[in-house]
Amino acid sequence: MNFSEINPAARMLMCPGPVESDPRVLRAMSAPILGQFDPQFLGYMAETQEMARKVFQTSNKQTYCVDTTSRGGLETVLTGAICPGDKVLIPAFGRFGYLLSEILERCGAEITLLEREWGTVFEPEEIEAELKKGGYKAVACIHGETSTSMMQPMEELGKICKKYDALLIVDTVATLGGVDIRVDEWGIDGCIAGTQKCISAPSGSALITYNDKIHEIVLARKKVEKGIRIDSDVDGDLPQIPSNYLDLAQLEDYWGPRHLNHHTESTSMQYAVHEALRCIMQEGLQERFDRHSLNDKALCAGLQAMGLEIFGDIKNKMPVVTAINIPEGIDGPTLRGQLLNDFGIEVATSFGPLDGKIIRIGNMGYCSQKRNILILLSALEAVLVHNKVKINVSDGVEAALEVYQNAK
Amino acid sequence: MNFSEINPAARMLMCPGPVESDPRVLRAMSAPILGQFDPQFLGYMAETQEMARKVFQTSNKQTYCVDTTSRGGLETVLTGAICPGDKVLIPAFGRFGYLLSEILERCGAEITLLEREWGTVFEPEEIEAELKKGGYKAVACIHGETSTSMMQPMEELGKICKKYDALLIVDTVATLGGVDIRVDEWGIDGCIAGTQKCISAPSGSALITYNDKIHEIVLARKKVEKGIRIDSDVDGDLPQIPSNYLDLAQLEDYWGPRHLNHHTESTSMQYAVHEALRCIMQEGLQERFDRHSLNDKALCAGLQAMGLEIFGDIKNKMPVVTAINIPEGIDGPTLRGQLLNDFGIEVATSFGPLDGKIIRIGNMGYCSQKRNILILLSALEAVLVHNKVKINVSDGVEAALEVYQNAK
Repeated sequence: MNFSEINPAARMLMCPGPVESDPRVLRAMSAPILGQFDPQFLGYMAETQEMARKVFQTSNKQTYCVDTTSRGGLETVLTGAICPGDKVLIPAFGRFGYLLSEILERCGAEITLLEREWGTVFEPEEIEAELKKGGYKAVACIHGETSTSMMQPMEELGKICKKYDALLIVDTVATLGGVDIRVDEWGIDGCIAGTQKCISAPSGSALITYNDKIHEIVLARKKVEKGIRIDSDVDGDLPQIPSNYLDLAQLEDYWGPRHLNHHTESTSMQYAVHEALRCIMQEGLQERFDRHSLNDKALCAGLQAMGLEIFGDIKNKMPVVTAINIPEGIDGPTLRGQLLNDFGIEVATSFGPLDGKIIRIGNMGYCSQKRNILILLSALEAVLVHNKVKINVSDGVEAALEVYQNAK
Repeated sequence: MNFSEINPAARMLMCPGPVESDPRVLRAMSAPILGQFDPQFLGYMAETQEMARKVFQTSNKQTYCVDTTSRGGLETVLTGAICPGDKVLIPAFGRFGYLLSEILERCGAEITLLEREWGTVFEPEEIEAELKKGGYKAVACIHGETSTSMMQPMEELGKICKKYDALLIVDTVATLGGVDIRVDEWGIDGCIAGTQKCISAPSGSALITYNDKIHEIVLARKKVEKGIRIDSDVDGDLPQIPSNYLDLAQLEDYWGPRHLNHHTESTSMQYAVHEALRCIMQEGLQERFDRHSLNDKALCAGLQAMGLEIFGDIKNKMPVVTAINIPEGIDGPTLRGQLLNDFGIEVATSFGPLDGKIIRIGNMGYCSQKRNILILLSALEAVLVHNKVKINVSDGVEAALEVYQNAK
């Protein structure tokens, strides 16, 4: 009987998630459990909703958490808003675009996939040209495509969707809390985020928000389950949502004033999300975006000064993820292995066509700190020098420091 | 900007879940985040699997966690094992039996519901009579039906299912970790549990196990998703599993040696489950069952000596939940409200036909303690006396103390 005590090695998680949680969040999770309908717990849930609205920059009443990781939140909103047979356009510019189609195919949607070379984003005209053909119920799109580090501009897309009366459902799993996202102003109808990236809580909860257009669809698909339904409960006209656990209609009743029993809310993750959002409120949204942006600028300046090449269309790069082409003279597993095992720093590989070609560096949430950027650049330099890769020694950290000095 | 700090009021959770987490579990959750594929983290996951096998008393290779609450774990196993058109028999003796049918109807199974008065369990013959009619792919059943406090004997059921070649899938959400459950010996093919009851971790993870019969079905439904699939990946012959997030085939690859990216494992919940299982290993399974059993005996003796009536078929009562008929002279909300607000003790109401008629008292995991039973009985007595309900004053605690003394 030799099972280990939880005692994680020291790690700096400079990958695109999961990243380190704010220590205040970790501390909040060790608070004792409250009953799921204890008035104090319901109070925390209501505050979480209010703070999440501020972070999504929305007034959507339907703003709450799903007790899954981000992927489950995506499926919940997509399969709640999209009925079998609905036509959905998915502009895919990386792995997670394909995930959206993978989820929607299973629920019987008719998918049209627009594809783009990994490392680029779509021009609004490309998407409009397809929507013009007519009949689309929705566009589903990734905001920050972590697999390629690209970020699709959203403002124009919202206008186009409105013009063609298509819902816009956006995955902001990798960007919410690190990048300015304006759900209402940009015309996003449904939006999903995770907690383990720029929100800086552990993985295990998904933040979602959607407007009345989607809410009306959900109501028309609602069916209160046997064992708790009452006489006044009437079934809707549209096909029932395929999953019981990921059923937006039931989740609305759980989070809404009726507090109708569904799952048992994950108490400690709820504490974590509440505290993580509170940390964001304390910092201020703009201050938080500026912090991520400055650290990104320093990181990129450092990498380029070192002589490394940043992958993809830099103009549309996410400020919270940077990918570099793996330089000649070293391979990905060696680079990542030495950073992890010698320096305790985690960076990531990518998927599919980019696996082994790029290294992805995160700059997310609590990990987006000046000291982390400088330590990462120093360690990266050391690993490359140790492997006799040709770089401009000392220039990386120096360039980053200069960015910080000029920012004062 | 006045959002509260997480600072829960002191509570004793003598309800049927969520109950208090072991303080060691809460502490484990405040450990820093590790990357999802960090070797140390993968090591914890492997240990969790090994410990979960011991608690389920199984040698099933496929034993792991789903990042949902228990309800999601139920749906995951049910919709992975059952294909559209499969005939499933559900003997329902309370609310959660209906939940199984609710989940399976959505995935196109053909359900036959056997119903029983709430407060009773099925005789094996009743189930066999139905299986005899032939054509059943599976029987899905609740072990501990928390809505009524009844526990369905399982050993006989396993033999009957084997005889008629039907899978037996059992919900042990409320019982695992508090009651002797022998998955292999009893012939259970798939088994699901939660964490927030007798396991004494927070809600937010589901423990599942299933044997090769179900694993073969899952393999035949497997389809590796675009963006990460490789040339050697072949699709199976059976219909794909309806959900991407709750896809057993993908979860197997995530937890298996391939560690194929699916969701991002909920790090802190994984720490919690690992530590909760470790606490069970340290206590010993038999010692743990005995503890629950003794506290149940003391609780029941106390309630009866007080003059209260235990609900339902006592012979088949769960040792981890006890329901009492609400006595004349007080109503449920008053009783529960005063226990919660004056004494900080939570007990529960029930659902549907039993709402307002019974009060359910939990005796689960970390909350199953002598002191808790004695405090609960004292507080219950005080509330009843305060409301002028006729009871035998002082006899309850005295009877419970006697049970403990005789047990020495």
